[in-house]
Amino acid sequence: MSDRTTLRRVPDRAVTDRDAIDAVLDEGLMAHVGLVAGEGDGSHPVVIPMLYARDGDVLYLHGSPASRLLRTAKKGVEVCVTVTLLDALVLARSGLHHSMNYRSVVVMGTATEITDRDAKVAALDRLVDHTIPGRSAQIRPAHDIEITGTTVLILSLDECSMKARTGGPVDDAEDLDEPSWAGLIPLGVAVGEPLPDEGSADDPVPGHVAFWSRGPGQVNGRAG
Amino acid sequence: MSDRTTLRRVPDRAVTDRDAIDAVLDEGLMAHVGLVAGEGDGSHPVVIPMLYARDGDVLYLHGSPASRLLRTAKKGVEVCVTVTLLDALVLARSGLHHSMNYRSVVVMGTATEITDRDAKVAALDRLVDHTIPGRSAQIRPAHDIEITGTTVLILSLDECSMKARTGGPVDDAEDLDEPSWAGLIPLGVAVGEPLPDEGSADDPVPGHVAFWSRGPGQVNGRAG
Repeated sequence: MSDRTTLRRVPDRAVTDRDAIDAVLDEGLMAHVGLVAGEGDGSHPVVIPMLYARDGDVLYLHGSPASRLLRTAKKGVEVCVTVTLLDALVLARSGLHHSMNYRSVVVMGTATEITDRDAKVAALDRLVDHTIPGRSAQIRPAHDIEITGTTVLILSLDECSMKARTGGPVDDAEDLDEPSWAGLIPLGVAVGEPLPDEGSADDPVPGHVAFWSRGPGQVNGRAG
Repeated sequence: MSDRTTLRRVPDRAVTDRDAIDAVLDEGLMAHVGLVAGEGDGSHPVVIPMLYARDGDVLYLHGSPASRLLRTAKKGVEVCVTVTLLDALVLARSGLHHSMNYRSVVVMGTATEITDRDAKVAALDRLVDHTIPGRSAQIRPAHDIEITGTTVLILSLDECSMKARTGGPVDDAEDLDEPSWAGLIPLGVAVGEPLPDEGSADDPVPGHVAFWSRGPGQVNGRAG
């Protein structure tokens, strides 16, 4: 935890527990990755969504070698990887106390490319299994041309931080008699019925697909 | 649409329809905002989640005046605001063709502070109503001290772009006989039962709370 990732505002929302940080990274499906593009006066921030996976104390990032961000990051520029989960809308009795309950992890550092073949294969399997646990065992191994044709970046979790908001609305005392309803609307990840493609239309839906879910069970019912 | 936001890779995924871009911005709940923090050799990208709202051809961003990002952005540095919606997991017959169906909008530009009182009040109402349509009419107007105590930034949509992936998995022809199930797992926003706070526990749940939803109805059932 460096000074750069130490929270400067509302420190009561900072979470320093590494287990809590890992839980957010493991629950998230997509990261928003920022870097500085261009140079000098033309430099500007770029933020794009990317697939990722955590493996112990590192993150893997994944995409085509043609991706502008992956090409830039390979050179060793610094990245900021942010993963945010929305847990609830917070409805207060005044507009300015409206908020969201969320958990957000920020990882800063320099991403480097994985070149070792075995490490790359393990990272690619981890990326598939992060999104769909158990999936990599259900598909054929990657061909050599697929492995060499993909760029995988690795980023240490050394510099990571977490912010979270939990609990109900915090209203000013003089607003407690206001007639407006106040409380939480819980949010989660809704899962629709799996849609097979043409070649799988007559096949049974395997368990890792049929029972896929993410996040707290009390919110995320399956909806058809 | 500037050269900076013109897509360089997989151009078939680029969406230039401004109505489609507006629809993504209006459906999203949270943006990931990037900027360049620090100076010279110490400069680095920072990406944080923020509440936002679209109003015609501009975005509003909102937070405390003490927020490091809002203080930095007020000076006129460039920001990159990215809003991403996840529509489905894409399961293919090989690991490398796994993907996600998503819609993502990137807005680049220089955010400035809104200082005009009426414009700021309108923006604050818009921020509340973006998240919970109809909510601002159900709560008391903001007090002067609340209005002056909040920073609202405005960012033009002049420089915006969109990427999207739709449809089923795209497998290599030689993989079509693989036994693995392939297709989509649709995703959406799950909504739990509203949780009133102590002061609203005995009140009826108003319609703008009870029927709150986001995104396509075929995925997002209400789950208790």
